Amino acid sequence: MNKANHLSVRDAQHCVLQHVATLNSEIVKLEHSLGRVLAEEIRANRDQPPFDVSAMDGFALRSADLASTPAALTIIEDIKAGDRPARTVLAGQCSRIMTGAPVPAGADAVIRVEDTQMLDEGRVEIHCPVKPGNDIRRLGEAMRNGQVVLSAGTEITPGVIGVLATVKCARVTVYCRPRVAILATGDELEGLDEPFDANKIPNSNSYALMAQAQALGIEPVLLGIARDDPEELAQFLRRGLLFDVLLVSGGSSVGVHDHVRPTLEALGVDMHFWRVEMRPGHPVAFGSTASSIVFGLPGNPVSSMVCFEQFVLPALRRMMGHPRLYRRTLAARLAHPVSIRPGRTEFIRVVLERDAAGDYLARSTGSQSSGALLSMAQADGLLVVPSTSSGQAAGDLAQVQLLDGTVFQSEAGFEGEA
Amino acid sequence: MNKANHLSVRDAQHCVLQHVATLNSEIVKLEHSLGRVLAEEIRANRDQPPFDVSAMDGFALRSADLASTPAALTIIEDIKAGDRPARTVLAGQCSRIMTGAPVPAGADAVIRVEDTQMLDEGRVEIHCPVKPGNDIRRLGEAMRNGQVVLSAGTEITPGVIGVLATVKCARVTVYCRPRVAILATGDELEGLDEPFDANKIPNSNSYALMAQAQALGIEPVLLGIARDDPEELAQFLRRGLLFDVLLVSGGSSVGVHDHVRPTLEALGVDMHFWRVEMRPGHPVAFGSTASSIVFGLPGNPVSSMVCFEQFVLPALRRMMGHPRLYRRTLAARLAHPVSIRPGRTEFIRVVLERDAAGDYLARSTGSQSSGALLSMAQADGLLVVPSTSSGQAAGDLAQVQLLDGTVFQSEAGFEGEA
Repeated sequence: MNKANHLSVRDAQHCVLQHVATLNSEIVKLEHSLGRVLAEEIRANRDQPPFDVSAMDGFALRSADLASTPAALTIIEDIKAGDRPARTVLAGQCSRIMTGAPVPAGADAVIRVEDTQMLDEGRVEIHCPVKPGNDIRRLGEAMRNGQVVLSAGTEITPGVIGVLATVKCARVTVYCRPRVAILATGDELEGLDEPFDANKIPNSNSYALMAQAQALGIEPVLLGIARDDPEELAQFLRRGLLFDVLLVSGGSSVGVHDHVRPTLEALGVDMHFWRVEMRPGHPVAFGSTASSIVFGLPGNPVSSMVCFEQFVLPALRRMMGHPRLYRRTLAARLAHPVSIRPGRTEFIRVVLERDAAGDYLARSTGSQSSGALLSMAQADGLLVVPSTSSGQAAGDLAQVQLLDGTVFQSEAGFEGEA
Repeated sequence: MNKANHLSVRDAQHCVLQHVATLNSEIVKLEHSLGRVLAEEIRANRDQPPFDVSAMDGFALRSADLASTPAALTIIEDIKAGDRPARTVLAGQCSRIMTGAPVPAGADAVIRVEDTQMLDEGRVEIHCPVKPGNDIRRLGEAMRNGQVVLSAGTEITPGVIGVLATVKCARVTVYCRPRVAILATGDELEGLDEPFDANKIPNSNSYALMAQAQALGIEPVLLGIARDDPEELAQFLRRGLLFDVLLVSGGSSVGVHDHVRPTLEALGVDMHFWRVEMRPGHPVAFGSTASSIVFGLPGNPVSSMVCFEQFVLPALRRMMGHPRLYRRTLAARLAHPVSIRPGRTEFIRVVLERDAAGDYLARSTGSQSSGALLSMAQADGLLVVPSTSSGQAAGDLAQVQLLDGTVFQSEAGFEGEA
């Protein structure tokens, strides 16, 4: 790897991931486990269902009795979920049965209530034949006692929580979340709680980065703003290096006033890169110590956010044990041509629309200036123009990285809706 | 609307949304606002940037001085972000300038440091000409004092939090989250904290529904399990109707032991539907009072979750003020044929893969039994087969609703990666 400089986005991502390991595990209550990653294998503690059960509200019967239909059967019992059937179904008989209730002895099929009609005197008319096994869920069909139902490394989604509750896991072992510190640097910055000064630049990066970490389930610590004083900066950085991950915004480029990199090196941080061939985000730095990793993020708000998405996000997700490290991408057609300087991977803020055929269309949010934070707030995603391209034409397919907020859309998106 | 029964998914969604309004607003700290929806319009409180600033580390100069290059200029000042320039740049002069620093009087362009070379005696050689305005971010370019930067109804993403911090919004007015109660019903159910009984069915639905609500930023209250006793059920439902939203799992189908619907009606709930033409999830009910809405969800774990996604999720998101009510869908090619009974919208649990061209491929997770909760845990999404279809062939395009966990993927997805 060219340690000095000018890595591709991909090489820089790989460099970061080489210095990141999954954290230790901890035990949390099931109610607090959503989004975490299992650090243990989970086995079923019972057969599920525990016996043959009905998949429908209807009648449990002997399929042979329906050789000719309609057929009238005598109802001998009502069985609901939670009951134990008391009677065996004999020829010409059936039991009324509810979804999830045990199938009685003698019966080999269930017919749903919609295909029947009640007669008087406790009898029911069945309209159509059924095959043996119809609408019966077999003992152990969903899970077998002792079977591995979830492996370590599984992200805990609502469906996984359902499975964990099924096997009575009230507490689960999950990978820890990293402790993340965020530091802003620069004399020009005005803190959120500081008085208004028309000549200063509000510190937005700390809060945008905070929110990007929060969106991953992490509650970071904001260290505040380090002024352009080497002693003060060193003190802040020393504190930041006590965390698993330190994000420093601003002060990492090559200018004479940028103290962050030399100060980090003086504090024992091994710097792995400080330039990536991307736009926005070119001056992004990464280093590590034995116990922490440090990102030097650009001072420009959009650059800072884009670098978080490409480098910090996969690192944080790996620490938390996630097998899926990157933002989802989808193919979209360009609504207009895009021209760029070749040699750098370009991330263009876009909104997603859908054309008449339901295909995605990507449209630039407008100014791609790295100061145009508003356009980052409006964006659904980042359209990626590979470094080998010098631009793309309207209608070309491109990959769009989905940002937070794009998990949802305005229309259901099926059944002929626009 | 056919109030009696058998709505399409779309009609049922519209029926639900007709009975749901956006909630009141509350004030929260910026740090706690991620994922909420703005209930107020936000205006800029200053010009941003507050003056013309440099977009690069480099030199501020007069573009006319570069009529022929290379040209040597005398450095008269160092300007960093937060400084006020003291000197006017005259012909043959330049000032060293950092990203974000104010452009000094006299200068009309910035050239980045990469296109220059230091000479001795405080002079710099410039390699190439620049146009007036080059790499200068103009006063007010990002936002103008008084300009509306965010409208009410905007979802608060990390980019939006950056904008809010820029205009110094330490507290924001957002729509409230609904208070949601979850009730399980049925004698057959074993609670998570109850002793193991091989003949019972663990209550997984309450926890899966809890997690589905948590994934939307809501912390629901679990009311527990109502046994099949009309008095006990009425007591539980009465308590549940004190919430904005009550989710009742099980007991809403047409069987003789299903008390939920009549009890809700006796408690004054106006029931709007209790059957939707979908699979899984057919027996799903919806009702409302003046102050709450109630969903009767199927007892089958997968059906319950699928109904939440189609009906509860858009309702909860509308209450929270979100303009985007539905899960994102994307087009995927079927990895295998799918045959279904026409007349019902079918939701098939699928995993998403990518083919060599980067297109999405949807593959069934296997058994589509509504008891197969494991397959819901494995699914990336729900493939939607419209009710008008009787099936689809391998290679056909279909819409897939993305589930939680699919926000991320294993590969970066660009720059030629698989």
